[in-house]
Amino acid sequence: MSEKKKFAVVLSGCGVYDGAEITETVTTLLAIEKAGAEYEVFAPDMEQRQVINHINGEEMQEARNVLVEAARIVRGDIKPLSGFNAENYDALMFPGGFGAAKNLSSFAFDGPECSIHPEVEKAVRETHKADKPIGALCITPVIMAKIFGEAKLTIGSDQSVADALQAMGASHVNTTHGEVVTDKNLKIATTPCYMLDAKITQIAEGAENIVNAVMKMTS
Amino acid sequence: MSEKKKFAVVLSGCGVYDGAEITETVTTLLAIEKAGAEYEVFAPDMEQRQVINHINGEEMQEARNVLVEAARIVRGDIKPLSGFNAENYDALMFPGGFGAAKNLSSFAFDGPECSIHPEVEKAVRETHKADKPIGALCITPVIMAKIFGEAKLTIGSDQSVADALQAMGASHVNTTHGEVVTDKNLKIATTPCYMLDAKITQIAEGAENIVNAVMKMTS
Repeated sequence: MSEKKKFAVVLSGCGVYDGAEITETVTTLLAIEKAGAEYEVFAPDMEQRQVINHINGEEMQEARNVLVEAARIVRGDIKPLSGFNAENYDALMFPGGFGAAKNLSSFAFDGPECSIHPEVEKAVRETHKADKPIGALCITPVIMAKIFGEAKLTIGSDQSVADALQAMGASHVNTTHGEVVTDKNLKIATTPCYMLDAKITQIAEGAENIVNAVMKMTS
Repeated sequence: MSEKKKFAVVLSGCGVYDGAEITETVTTLLAIEKAGAEYEVFAPDMEQRQVINHINGEEMQEARNVLVEAARIVRGDIKPLSGFNAENYDALMFPGGFGAAKNLSSFAFDGPECSIHPEVEKAVRETHKADKPIGALCITPVIMAKIFGEAKLTIGSDQSVADALQAMGASHVNTTHGEVVTDKNLKIATTPCYMLDAKITQIAEGAENIVNAVMKMTS
């Protein structure tokens, strides 16, 4: 029997502009393993809202599936988010990327009036109900603000996104590289990562710090 | 003026089964930065030989471009390999993934009779001619064997790939996680990474070890 803590990690595709931010994802998984824990990876089985050419930023006239593309990051070792059960995990993690604001939620299109993918909302609410911690990197704190309203969160120092968080009822704390803000009541930890201009070592540091903060809140 | 060493890193797409192995790529870039060096990333501007669904392993009837997909890993900060000039870099690195055997070479289809993408061969030969080191992870030592013939290399312990290396004139050294084989005459370092069943921390260790081995050979 493994005594290791088990993290569930939710991806939103493969690539910062229409899916999961790849460096944030890899460094999060690496940090989980370094912390002595295990992970399983999930994504919603849905069509991406957009497919973006990552060189010129233009939309491509293609259809891609979030789960199938996210599988690229983890060599196919991924499950549909519909099968997530909070009972089986000690913590829930969301790496960033625009996929969180396009696929997991509609924040990129609708701002504070966004909707949250029902499977994402269910995973977050079940984890919270089970008194287990959640970690949200980069732009993914918008999901927490929409679901919980009142929450202490950080997305770094981008004023317009901070304003949007506050419009959803959350309070925002300005942070810089590697800093983690923890809402102890909600057991939610957040860190800015690529919401700031960052070097890859700074992303790895942020991922490690948030994983360790979440790890500490596991029981 | 920066005094930092500069690595050129060549990608072959985005995702292990038809492109660059993502964890190997991210941990290589992270290791370069940790070693106090910088990197620039390249890929050939060409159509992928295959597009593979990373969940079921089946070929998808789609066309994708190696450079455009590789850009996903590095947030668009990538250049066409046609513009590579060995004068501007201290070292050349190849993360693995089937893209190296499908796009950078035809090894996945043709084995020891494979051809090497002309831009890849030019980059390798120019780097070698300039007496600068090369690092090759995972399956990418097959490229070095095809170009140089006689070379001391490792792809871990897969007998059929080791046999293919030897058929191309190279000698193979069996290795396990994190071990690096260095051909001091050619200034080529190799390490198995996902040519072995591996945990993500073992990939990070292999990437760090090969980057440090290559770093030592820079002048």
